[in-house]
Amino acid sequence: MPKINAARLLSDLRSLAQFGRYRTGVHRPTFSKDDMDARRWLAQQYEASGLQAQIDGVGNVFGMPRSDRRSLLIGSHAESQNHAGWLDGALGVIYGLEIARTFAETPHCAGLPIAPVAWADEEGHYVSMLGSRSFIGDLDEAEIDRAVNVDHGLPLRDALRAAGLAGVARSPAEPGRHVGYLEAHIEQGDALEASRKRIGVVTSIVGLWQYSIVFHGIQNHAGTTRMAIRKDAGVAAAMLAMAIAKRFPEVAGPHSVWTTGRITLEPGAPNIIPRKAEMLFQFRDSEMPVLESLDAVLRELIEGVATKTGCRAGIERTEAGEPWQMDPAFQAAIENAAARHAPGTCVRMPSGAGHDAQVVARKLRAAMLFVPSIGGVSHHWSENTDDADLVLGCQVLADAAEMILRCEGGEM
Amino acid sequence: MPKINAARLLSDLRSLAQFGRYRTGVHRPTFSKDDMDARRWLAQQYEASGLQAQIDGVGNVFGMPRSDRRSLLIGSHAESQNHAGWLDGALGVIYGLEIARTFAETPHCAGLPIAPVAWADEEGHYVSMLGSRSFIGDLDEAEIDRAVNVDHGLPLRDALRAAGLAGVARSPAEPGRHVGYLEAHIEQGDALEASRKRIGVVTSIVGLWQYSIVFHGIQNHAGTTRMAIRKDAGVAAAMLAMAIAKRFPEVAGPHSVWTTGRITLEPGAPNIIPRKAEMLFQFRDSEMPVLESLDAVLRELIEGVATKTGCRAGIERTEAGEPWQMDPAFQAAIENAAARHAPGTCVRMPSGAGHDAQVVARKLRAAMLFVPSIGGVSHHWSENTDDADLVLGCQVLADAAEMILRCEGGEM
Repeated sequence: MPKINAARLLSDLRSLAQFGRYRTGVHRPTFSKDDMDARRWLAQQYEASGLQAQIDGVGNVFGMPRSDRRSLLIGSHAESQNHAGWLDGALGVIYGLEIARTFAETPHCAGLPIAPVAWADEEGHYVSMLGSRSFIGDLDEAEIDRAVNVDHGLPLRDALRAAGLAGVARSPAEPGRHVGYLEAHIEQGDALEASRKRIGVVTSIVGLWQYSIVFHGIQNHAGTTRMAIRKDAGVAAAMLAMAIAKRFPEVAGPHSVWTTGRITLEPGAPNIIPRKAEMLFQFRDSEMPVLESLDAVLRELIEGVATKTGCRAGIERTEAGEPWQMDPAFQAAIENAAARHAPGTCVRMPSGAGHDAQVVARKLRAAMLFVPSIGGVSHHWSENTDDADLVLGCQVLADAAEMILRCEGGEM
Repeated sequence: MPKINAARLLSDLRSLAQFGRYRTGVHRPTFSKDDMDARRWLAQQYEASGLQAQIDGVGNVFGMPRSDRRSLLIGSHAESQNHAGWLDGALGVIYGLEIARTFAETPHCAGLPIAPVAWADEEGHYVSMLGSRSFIGDLDEAEIDRAVNVDHGLPLRDALRAAGLAGVARSPAEPGRHVGYLEAHIEQGDALEASRKRIGVVTSIVGLWQYSIVFHGIQNHAGTTRMAIRKDAGVAAAMLAMAIAKRFPEVAGPHSVWTTGRITLEPGAPNIIPRKAEMLFQFRDSEMPVLESLDAVLRELIEGVATKTGCRAGIERTEAGEPWQMDPAFQAAIENAAARHAPGTCVRMPSGAGHDAQVVARKLRAAMLFVPSIGGVSHHWSENTDDADLVLGCQVLADAAEMILRCEGGEM
């Protein structure tokens, strides 16, 4: 059994958090100076662990074992959301590093090759899941040419040039080179904390379906237009939001979530009846039939609101991501390891957030492990996890990695 | 009985609409070149009618009778909303001009002085009701110093300078100089059209109460935060909007109107549960007790939504305009005149929109006459009124003016 070095793990997590430090969190947008400094620091750590390090043409940092055996990829993304937490992404990246080092130092594990990886731009400062999509061959040059930063509009090509990556080749997945992929991440919710569990084994990553919903009413004077003849697009939007709140729980799965993130009324003046209301709405679930039911109910509710309010409705589905199941044998490996180190503290759960694992899973067997987020907080600088949970998660993932590589090698 | 010149009235309305013509409407913002050209053209028409014309320091255009008798002010505002209708404001201004001319030409009316007026910036490109407020002494220099254009931010002082009005004195109401004030306006609603009436006698101008309502929830990840623990400020806003739609009709008066003109969710991202929702809400009624009841119900509903959603609520009342009653004798004069010219087509009604008359009424006896708006349209370039209604309205107002001045002079 590989025994990770808890002090080194915590120290490296804190070292990585120095790059772009912001209050108790980090501000490390993809391809910023802090992000590239962090990636170069990671490459050094990989080399110091006996691996061959490489930063590829989209910023992915690979630590490649000097071995002919198929290796197990372990990692996550290195950049952060703006002014966000120190563990989101960083946790899985440092777990990969620590597990690779531990295996290299542990005589009976030294022949089991771990390939740590730090993906680029999972957070979508330019292109969501940029690095993992490039790795699996799902990103063409034209998409890179088109992409710009969502905050300041800098073209991705310019950002790559400034990062010293212009002309550097991208490293696609080579067939037969990897056994699979493991990713650890903070939960970003409170399910583990609320149920007093310490390890989440991700069963699936939810599908995210997103919509732009528009109601067209009739703009008119807010003082002189009788209530009886109004066609108020804003009232239609509010009516839909409340109809969703009432009806969705009846068809949703136990883990379904739905959110109206934005409502825009036009013209948006206090004394004018809105002629147009636009809602950004999304829901997520891990089961395709549930997603399809929610879609059907949503369309039925919109129809009903249009009839009731006299407003004309439009709906455009802008995302319809498939839920992705995690590899069952990998899930079992994590669960077994958790049972050894912290009996009764492990639970299977879907991931409500998107992760690189859902991209890599299209090419390789993949699984994910969650550790608790204190208070369920994420995407905020105050995000945190108990040190004991940080250490436990890494040890469980190391054990699972050993089991997966031994099975693969026919040793078990 | 003064007999207005229908052809001249319609021709002058069309001449005024050439200034800033936009499709079938006008774009004539206050103190724009087109607006000032229109004001200078009006001053010429006043002079040509034997009046002494004056453009004062805030752009009000006065046509002053050369008579010692107390005169009757008749007018409205000369500027338009952006890309709006040709009659809003212009109608009452040209009625004033036509009635002054008709009285001057009609031997038995020549001794009854009409003082036409074109107020500045009722529409609030800089300061709502600027001209009429200046006239009644409700506008100090400091407010002029502070004001800027709502669209492009130009300081009012700079606009006045560019209009050639820097250093020009303002003309306040002189005690005892005017008998009162009459204003004609398009209805800006469909009540007249819907009831097949042609003349509206305004009984009161509604009070407008406006609110900024805020709900504070908890921002969190839209994918990982269970529905059960959310405090979604956007859901709170939608819930309030629907609670208002359900409860307000039970306490509202027959002419009450209410509108949510804007909803803003923060941070406004599709994958983040809104931490804050802000609503711009207003209602209007002509009765103070109704306004007070609606205010009380609104606060009660907000309280209820806060309790149900777990969001913290805030409410700020940003306007609380008193309803203003029109002069009963002036109303009767308009009604009598309407009965002579178009029996059975006149109806008393409150004004849901604000008008200069509500400002002037604080100093002088005042009343308003409405003509129908085709399809109830206003604040849009397609706004229009049937020619026959345009002519009838002016004739009715002329007769009412005669009656008012004769009563004042002890002739009736």
